[in-house]
Amino acid sequence: MASTSPTFRDLQQQAWEANQALNRAGLVVATFGNASVFSPSEGVFAIKPSGVPYTTLKAEDIVIVDVEGQVVSGSLRPSSDTPTHAVLYRNFEGIQSICHTHSTHAVAWAQALRSIPVYGTTHADHLTVPVPCTPLMSDARIDGDYEIETGNEIVHFFRENHLRAADVQMVLVGGHGPFTWGPTGQKAVYNSVILEEIARMAWLTEQINPDAAPIKEHLISKHWQRKHGKNSYYGQ
Amino acid sequence: MASTSPTFRDLQQQAWEANQALNRAGLVVATFGNASVFSPSEGVFAIKPSGVPYTTLKAEDIVIVDVEGQVVSGSLRPSSDTPTHAVLYRNFEGIQSICHTHSTHAVAWAQALRSIPVYGTTHADHLTVPVPCTPLMSDARIDGDYEIETGNEIVHFFRENHLRAADVQMVLVGGHGPFTWGPTGQKAVYNSVILEEIARMAWLTEQINPDAAPIKEHLISKHWQRKHGKNSYYGQ
Amino acid sequence: MASTSPTFRDLQQQAWEANQALNRAGLVVATFGNASVFSPSEGVFAIKPSGVPYTTLKAEDIVIVDVEGQVVSGSLRPSSDTPTHAVLYRNFEGIQSICHTHSTHAVAWAQALRSIPVYGTTHADHLTVPVPCTPLMSDARIDGDYEIETGNEIVHFFRENHLRAADVQMVLVGGHGPFTWGPTGQKAVYNSVILEEIARMAWLTEQINPDAAPIKEHLISKHWQRKHGKNSYYGQ
Amino acid sequence: MASTSPTFRDLQQQAWEANQALNRAGLVVATFGNASVFSPSEGVFAIKPSGVPYTTLKAEDIVIVDVEGQVVSGSLRPSSDTPTHAVLYRNFEGIQSICHTHSTHAVAWAQALRSIPVYGTTHADHLTVPVPCTPLMSDARIDGDYEIETGNEIVHFFRENHLRAADVQMVLVGGHGPFTWGPTGQKAVYNSVILEEIARMAWLTEQINPDAAPIKEHLISKHWQRKHGKNSYYGQ
Repeated sequence: MASTSPTFRDLQQQAWEANQALNRAGLVVATFGNASVFSPSEGVFAIKPSGVPYTTLKAEDIVIVDVEGQVVSGSLRPSSDTPTHAVLYRNFEGIQSICHTHSTHAVAWAQALRSIPVYGTTHADHLTVPVPCTPLMSDARIDGDYEIETGNEIVHFFRENHLRAADVQMVLVGGHGPFTWGPTGQKAVYNSVILEEIARMAWLTEQINPDAAPIKEHLISKHWQRKHGKNSYYGQ
Repeated sequence: MASTSPTFRDLQQQAWEANQALNRAGLVVATFGNASVFSPSEGVFAIKPSGVPYTTLKAEDIVIVDVEGQVVSGSLRPSSDTPTHAVLYRNFEGIQSICHTHSTHAVAWAQALRSIPVYGTTHADHLTVPVPCTPLMSDARIDGDYEIETGNEIVHFFRENHLRAADVQMVLVGGHGPFTWGPTGQKAVYNSVILEEIARMAWLTEQINPDAAPIKEHLISKHWQRKHGKNSYYGQ
Repeated sequence: MASTSPTFRDLQQQAWEANQALNRAGLVVATFGNASVFSPSEGVFAIKPSGVPYTTLKAEDIVIVDVEGQVVSGSLRPSSDTPTHAVLYRNFEGIQSICHTHSTHAVAWAQALRSIPVYGTTHADHLTVPVPCTPLMSDARIDGDYEIETGNEIVHFFRENHLRAADVQMVLVGGHGPFTWGPTGQKAVYNSVILEEIARMAWLTEQINPDAAPIKEHLISKHWQRKHGKNSYYGQ
Repeated sequence: MASTSPTFRDLQQQAWEANQALNRAGLVVATFGNASVFSPSEGVFAIKPSGVPYTTLKAEDIVIVDVEGQVVSGSLRPSSDTPTHAVLYRNFEGIQSICHTHSTHAVAWAQALRSIPVYGTTHADHLTVPVPCTPLMSDARIDGDYEIETGNEIVHFFRENHLRAADVQMVLVGGHGPFTWGPTGQKAVYNSVILEEIARMAWLTEQINPDAAPIKEHLISKHWQRKHGKNSYYGQ
């Protein structure tokens, strides 16, 4: 199927919109960051080309790759983080979009090698556990296929800590920065926006009270349930 | 009275404007936050529908509810925080608008479970006491009717600490975030803007001087009096 | 001379521009702050009316007052800080404009009751000494004519510390906020912008290095001389 | 060759664009900062005139000077930092543009007299070592030809620490602020943007984790190689 097929064009358009939304939200500097959108039925995803500025990016520049990260359609080289996206799509069932940014406060937590504690209901509205931060990768992984191993590190961390990608739609890669995902491009971008805000609020919380404690399970659970539980009453 | 009645349309318009002003002021992210406007004579208030983005919100989307929080007019579900607004309107005489935001610095103080000390005249121009922060709610309250209990917690805290809602037009709900109010939508939004700025200045004050002390009563009183006392000489 | 005299209209226009520039620079919130422009030959200055939003302020709203702070022309009440401006114009020779803002970082230093150390050349390009911070006013002064006493406090502090208003064109009023001045409205606004930036940089400097030390006299003097000395070589 | 020669006009245009880009990126306040563009074949560079606001700066205002910093063409006085640029062009082979800003977080590290540790991959994507910070200049250097000595200090520091200007395209001048450079005006401006972001992230990293450690050599090297090594796979 050529890049001019309706399916590919639609994926390109969605991925282009997600990338533009990342830029509008002020989450990326220069050519940093990338968003992709996945079609499970086609087994391909559309991703930003490497090193192209957001302001000049066109929908037809978006590259179509398969779940092994091999280019299926497009004349530009895909994002260097493409193999990481591919690993996540292969392992995290149900996600159809991934964003990677270098947003300032999320990166700061990743560089500090700390998970973000659940300090308030803004956090609990979105996930019931700390935003996970993976440890620095081993030298063996770094020397291996680095971007694939970055994906493996995330998947491994989620499995080991019994986290479900449907519940926890964001992660900090230690020493690097955030990845977020979701069922749509809009939701994945939204999660990047929220993560940056949660990261900023948590930093300030500790500045204002060095003894700040995570809120209790009861309150976390209540906020999560009202937005996501089976009797949720948030939204339309 | 249908939502097409002049009174309801006017309330919807005022509430729409207050919600838009919150968004323009940069105090809300995504669909967070909500503003309402109350008509004491009609016994109803107009409030943002739940989970609707500010950018697509129309005046006719605003929901009319009674002081028990029951929908009187409107096809959308009202904000999940509606019962909290209802409790405040029932208990705080004279207030005709309420705003709830997740503005960054105010939330950080709420998550730090700290009231904001009166560090300067910017604060004293608006209230003579620390911005109150309620304690984390008890498990019983959380398990009960959560949003009603949030309102009860605020009202209880004000009563116990002899605070009058006319004098102290803002509160931090511990672990959650700020609510502000006032005699008009414009004033309630103004109070949300001021609270965020006071919260930011107070954080910075402590960073610059960990031994910073609140300003003395004499100066607090002077600034309050010149803006709000019977011989006030601020404004036109 | 009526407010329609060419001189008054010119003063009003200059003061209006200075006030608008403060707002554009993001140094004021809501109706906070005020700028005035002084005509030594007429013995009057033009100042923002009290409590009027910057966005609706018109040049003809600007009030003309004499150096005792009495209204000479204009139908609105002048800024409540007018007596402070009047004291400074009477005592600081050569200044022809004054700005008062509640800009965030400058207020934070004022609330922290600390002068801002000369941590770098950005500071030294503008003044060779710490940005002075006056102590909290005595109860007697607060109970007296508060705004006049605020001016007296500044003048007294400058005299006692052998500071010349021509050399040090800014001050932090302890517990309150900054005043800046200069030979023109543009320069007074510029000084407010610079002060806010110096205040922000100095805060960050101490965060990054708690043992940060002021730069040495040699470097301070060099930077000041190249911009302001008799052999200055900065600018056109 | 007059300033109307095609070469000079082209250099002026490039330097004008670099200076405008600095301003658009929010890295300069008022008339602070300057960018220059160098033509090795002509032995001249084009630089911002001293003390001219970015908003009124025109391409024909840009001054052409030789590598000794002497004006070759142009009616305005060149930036007071011109001799520093000249020293760098004479000593750092291959660089064709230099930017100097007072960007907030980079200045704060310079004022703190600290090099910026490699806390993450955002840093390692651009340089494999800490962003160097030169010590405060000796009194003898300050009393000498100050701007030339600022250049000498940078060059000396790079030689002593075996840093190559092609690899490390940025420096913090202790107590002063950042200089960045590159093979083009666009790259030099890009480096100023990146440096400010790295400086901000590193400050936050230490705030969030006072025991934060630089990432390990393996990870630094991997990120540098994927962007700049002979088998680089970033970009098109």
